[in-house]
Amino acid sequence: MTSEPTLQMSETLSHEATATARGRPVLAIHGGAGTLLRSAMSPEAAAQYTNALEGILRAGQLQLQRGDSALDVVVQAVRALEECELFNAGRGAVYTAAGTHELDACVMAGDGLRAGAVAGLRTTRNPVLAARAVLEHSEHVMFVGPAADLFAARQGLEQVPHGWFGTPQRLQQLRLAQALAAGVVLDHDGQAAVINTDNAPLDEGQKFGTVGAVALDDAGHLAAATSTGGMTNKQAGRVGDTPLIGAGCYANDATVAISCTGTGEPFMRALAAHDVSTLMAYAGLPLAEAAERVVMQTLPALGGQGGLIAIAASGEVCMPFNTEGMYRGFARVGEAPVVAIYKEAQP
Amino acid sequence: MTSEPTLQMSETLSHEATATARGRPVLAIHGGAGTLLRSAMSPEAAAQYTNALEGILRAGQLQLQRGDSALDVVVQAVRALEECELFNAGRGAVYTAAGTHELDACVMAGDGLRAGAVAGLRTTRNPVLAARAVLEHSEHVMFVGPAADLFAARQGLEQVPHGWFGTPQRLQQLRLAQALAAGVVLDHDGQAAVINTDNAPLDEGQKFGTVGAVALDDAGHLAAATSTGGMTNKQAGRVGDTPLIGAGCYANDATVAISCTGTGEPFMRALAAHDVSTLMAYAGLPLAEAAERVVMQTLPALGGQGGLIAIAASGEVCMPFNTEGMYRGFARVGEAPVVAIYKEAQP
Repeated sequence: MTSEPTLQMSETLSHEATATARGRPVLAIHGGAGTLLRSAMSPEAAAQYTNALEGILRAGQLQLQRGDSALDVVVQAVRALEECELFNAGRGAVYTAAGTHELDACVMAGDGLRAGAVAGLRTTRNPVLAARAVLEHSEHVMFVGPAADLFAARQGLEQVPHGWFGTPQRLQQLRLAQALAAGVVLDHDGQAAVINTDNAPLDEGQKFGTVGAVALDDAGHLAAATSTGGMTNKQAGRVGDTPLIGAGCYANDATVAISCTGTGEPFMRALAAHDVSTLMAYAGLPLAEAAERVVMQTLPALGGQGGLIAIAASGEVCMPFNTEGMYRGFARVGEAPVVAIYKEAQP
Repeated sequence: MTSEPTLQMSETLSHEATATARGRPVLAIHGGAGTLLRSAMSPEAAAQYTNALEGILRAGQLQLQRGDSALDVVVQAVRALEECELFNAGRGAVYTAAGTHELDACVMAGDGLRAGAVAGLRTTRNPVLAARAVLEHSEHVMFVGPAADLFAARQGLEQVPHGWFGTPQRLQQLRLAQALAAGVVLDHDGQAAVINTDNAPLDEGQKFGTVGAVALDDAGHLAAATSTGGMTNKQAGRVGDTPLIGAGCYANDATVAISCTGTGEPFMRALAAHDVSTLMAYAGLPLAEAAERVVMQTLPALGGQGGLIAIAASGEVCMPFNTEGMYRGFARVGEAPVVAIYKEAQP
């Protein structure tokens, strides 16, 4: 990264669309949505997040510029998000109620509607690589539990000791959640949790830890990838929307690539990602309108909090969310990356 | 059952729609689709299937008549299909490559888009009851693996020794599949497999063992349920479309209730059940047209073989399939049940 992070907080990020050229290769990423209380976010913490997001966007930009496929780009972006402890996926994943980690991921290529998904991984370092391996090397689409790790290991993917995923911050979040006896606490940000400890009890379901990426490549193909460590203190064996095609992840060259983040269950019941695609395909809605309808109407009606990132076949980017914030950004080839956390403009 | 089974093989079963009254409570069920080679099906075997299907339809009819909810009716119908050894779900489930059973199920109520799903059960006698328990008694929507059995057990659902699910016919099918080294053989019909042994090698992916039910109740609510034992000789840990909302099972009071059966992966990539619903909701297609498009165009383009049963909010019933046969039937309150296996009319 040679330039300063471009930190834009403008409302237009939710509807970035018509202003920039369409059809040019573009990547969008997210690192989760939630209340992300601004009052509890120090400038240093915000800079950490924005730097991380921008670095990943720049790497993806380079890939797109040299002609890499959208599938390659979203997988690499999500892999980088998994490797970053700030986000709840891969290393830095939250703990289940049993004090373990269970990792889910999904990858979809809009070209041929090819997909791969894994749920309940415990030893595969990068869940998104396991999902991609399923897409490319299995006649099946989804593996769960120990069989998913076994498949990944047989594909030569790095296995790590289970403890590798945890961090002291995440363990503290688990202890806090269990102490509060608040049932399931959605959280992925150790820093904020520590601050919250001093301030007030964690809101119920206040943050949603998922990471994701969507991209449009030079050849006009779309791809999407989503990965998560789940929810702090969740019951083991629970599967959310992240690894489910059409719920938390979807790509179709004819319409759109989407990655979601939020309270998983409403996204599953609404088939949130597929719903946006079908609103475009069957109702003829433009992306911004379709995404807005799902995120601002359909999901809230089911109690769904969160958001999504989307890139249409036209190159239009849309990143709506119904929470206070969503870690997100996008980068077109030849333009400065744009990164944001909150909704409203701030200096 | 006091009357003779009504065995109709007419083409109109795929498009049963306009002839009968709409809006009256109705139940439709299926027991899987596939080649079901007519030449290999003895009249005795056909009668066994049709008797089983008709008995279940009549029981559901009585429930609907006395005002039971669509959710109650589909769960009871699928439970009965699970209990019947003829079908690949519950007792009579096929074996994985590891010689084990892994059972998946999903239930959805069109009223409020409530859903519950389980995958990889090994000890819960009736997977559909576990799915319903998730719908009613969990803040989550899907559990997989041992946690799913544990949840079911805690809900008081009957647990059985793992061996309870197997039958000698199913074991023979596994041995046959492994002997043929044909990779994954989709099969759920012991009788036909035995016959095939004498005749010819099993076609690849020639049959698809899933059971399902959809219903419209007196209050105008829709519900769907799907359950499966998976595929003979499948890799352990593989999850197909059956337990996935919007893929193998979907219900929405505004549109339709659907249960699918077939090669799971294309149904997952197409979001087959949700796609039918969105074609109705967003493209304004009538059920028959929407279902036809998905089963006869979208799925075959992805290599998807199978079919689905559907009941629209209007009461219209549609049961299209792109294979040689599908065990299926429907029953309206006050009318004789209709049961069929093959597509074309036969005496």
